Amino acid sequence: MNRRFISFEGIDFSGKSTQIALLKDYIEQNGVPVYVLREPGGTEISEAIRTILLDHRHGKMTARSEFLLFSAARAQLVEEKIRPLLQDGSFVIADRFVDSSTAYQGAGRGLEQAMVGNVNRFATGGLMPSVTFYMRLSVDAAAKRRRALNKEGDRMETAGQAFFKRVIDGYDALARQEPQRIEIIDAMQSIEKIQQSIQKRINGLL
Amino acid sequence: MNRRFISFEGIDFSGKSTQIALLKDYIEQNGVPVYVLREPGGTEISEAIRTILLDHRHGKMTARSEFLLFSAARAQLVEEKIRPLLQDGSFVIADRFVDSSTAYQGAGRGLEQAMVGNVNRFATGGLMPSVTFYMRLSVDAAAKRRRALNKEGDRMETAGQAFFKRVIDGYDALARQEPQRIEIIDAMQSIEKIQQSIQKRINGLL
Repeated sequence: MNRRFISFEGIDFSGKSTQIALLKDYIEQNGVPVYVLREPGGTEISEAIRTILLDHRHGKMTARSEFLLFSAARAQLVEEKIRPLLQDGSFVIADRFVDSSTAYQGAGRGLEQAMVGNVNRFATGGLMPSVTFYMRLSVDAAAKRRRALNKEGDRMETAGQAFFKRVIDGYDALARQEPQRIEIIDAMQSIEKIQQSIQKRINGLL
Repeated sequence: MNRRFISFEGIDFSGKSTQIALLKDYIEQNGVPVYVLREPGGTEISEAIRTILLDHRHGKMTARSEFLLFSAARAQLVEEKIRPLLQDGSFVIADRFVDSSTAYQGAGRGLEQAMVGNVNRFATGGLMPSVTFYMRLSVDAAAKRRRALNKEGDRMETAGQAFFKRVIDGYDALARQEPQRIEIIDAMQSIEKIQQSIQKRINGLL
């Protein structure tokens, strides 16, 4: 049932949105209904939670509270949207899923990995993507892309860089633990080359 | 440090608020600063979460999402308020704490108890009250009190009654598991008699 559930992971500027848009077109051309769901959000309740997360992004929200809010939004998304869509035979592409919590809240913010895993399993009720494309990009390359898009200069500060390095380490560790599910994509390749390898892996699921 | 952290539990109409107000006066008379914190709420972020919980109380919020939202509000409350207050030497009375999740979301809504326990421990970072007063009241007695306060008649429906019976069973099970921490109070006793036994237990902590 969840063969048609896949996710994309990676830090910002790794090209997830572009690849997801191209993949969505490709799956539709194959006559399969496909939905893209972006975390946190996708349901009325999850959007309300997203508002809190964005409002307080730079405030004094604790790491635990932040993680539990992401998890609450995810739990709602899974039961209200993802499971019903999969049951209808649709393809579901998640733009971020539990691995984001493991990498950002777990490795990035230093929450205990075992607890993060427990909460992740609880929030999803055990539903996992059959394939996760991890768009791997270095912090330096992400900063360069950011600068190119933002003429005001690079706002990724030194403290931010250390955080994103931990996030990447978190993703790398996950990819080593679950090589069957998580496919590492070198995000420095051309858009076309990346999409080709994604489609190649997806063909078996259509 | 957390000797001065206590909580009150029990279903609505069990008299928690009255006893907490009386106990607050009593502790203040003893010259100890005391704060009452009511869940979910007590911090800006927790209040925002409370709004979502109340907005969607009768909506399609899933049990998992509801529990994770309560936990997020609790995590914020613990780190932003409860721990600093305890460190300052204040007495903190929580009007509901993790046991409410175990009873309402766990036993009441049928979530896996082991997972509820894991999430509870994560949300609190292990901080627990030294004493919990469980105001025990039957569903029938609660319904009677409700009717007495509400001339429009009893709105606690049959489905609601079954839910509240599970909640009470959940509280009873907790009290059996942790008899040292959880003191069962017969909520059918007089206000004065209940307050006397609460003060007796509290004296050792002041």
